[in-house]
Amino acid sequence: MKHLLSVFVENKAGVLARVAGLFSRRGFNIDSLAVGQTHDKNFSRMTIVLDAEEHSLEQVTKQLHKLVNVVKISDFKQGEAVNRELVLFKVKANAKNRAHILEVADIFRAKIIDVSKNNVIIEVTGTESKISGIEDLLNQYGILELARTGKVALSRG
Amino acid sequence: MKHLLSVFVENKAGVLARVAGLFSRRGFNIDSLAVGQTHDKNFSRMTIVLDAEEHSLEQVTKQLHKLVNVVKISDFKQGEAVNRELVLFKVKANAKNRAHILEVADIFRAKIIDVSKNNVIIEVTGTESKISGIEDLLNQYGILELARTGKVALSRG
Repeated sequence: MKHLLSVFVENKAGVLARVAGLFSRRGFNIDSLAVGQTHDKNFSRMTIVLDAEEHSLEQVTKQLHKLVNVVKISDFKQGEAVNRELVLFKVKANAKNRAHILEVADIFRAKIIDVSKNNVIIEVTGTESKISGIEDLLNQYGILELARTGKVALSRG
Repeated sequence: MKHLLSVFVENKAGVLARVAGLFSRRGFNIDSLAVGQTHDKNFSRMTIVLDAEEHSLEQVTKQLHKLVNVVKISDFKQGEAVNRELVLFKVKANAKNRAHILEVADIFRAKIIDVSKNNVIIEVTGTESKISGIEDLLNQYGILELARTGKVALSRG
């Protein structure tokens, strides 16, 4: 089962390595991870998406709580939180098909952020299904590179 | 000096822990980190922003190259790459000031993705300066929570 964990940690060297090490020792492979500063520069938020059984995840969160630099852990259930991801796609494009690609971008409210002779870079944000939707359509032109941030989430209300 | 590293790695358990461990042992504190799958599900891309001297960063990238699961490392110089970040802000809002907040969001082409009685959640993407711009303006209403993905980047052209 997919889980989305939001882990609030002190912004100190080594915290990321300790958290990543904990998941790694248990054999979890993390689908995505986003780490950034919060409003208070002394703290960072790590948003982790991973596939795990309820029981083994419970064990890991217990161990996470024991790490001195971990302040708070939220395991967001579906519907409790809004989540978004940002993806940059570099797509093959030429004078002939560029207009078609712009059309696809437009449908998904994506932005063209770079254009060169042979390709365009498109920025899109959204939920997983929206992003896989545009990925499917851009595939036909040839996706040269792709960079995704991993999900971030905030609890509703 | 700030550096933006894009590290292409095999999508295997433990890779993140090894990379994070390497930075941690050298005492680097990572500003932001975004890890997500690439177009080929066997590989992930890690985008790392950190502050480091040219010399010590060189040492670390040499060691990174030695890790078996690391395929490619790019150290993007300013102007070589486009970079973007996504941030979710939860801002205090009531019936009185909600319209003002929507106005601010509009100016920054940000989207309102959740509204409740006492707050709104705003999604914004952009470069660092744009994001700190909207953060400054939202601050006056009260930022309750903030989740940022960390930067992702793709080389231009």
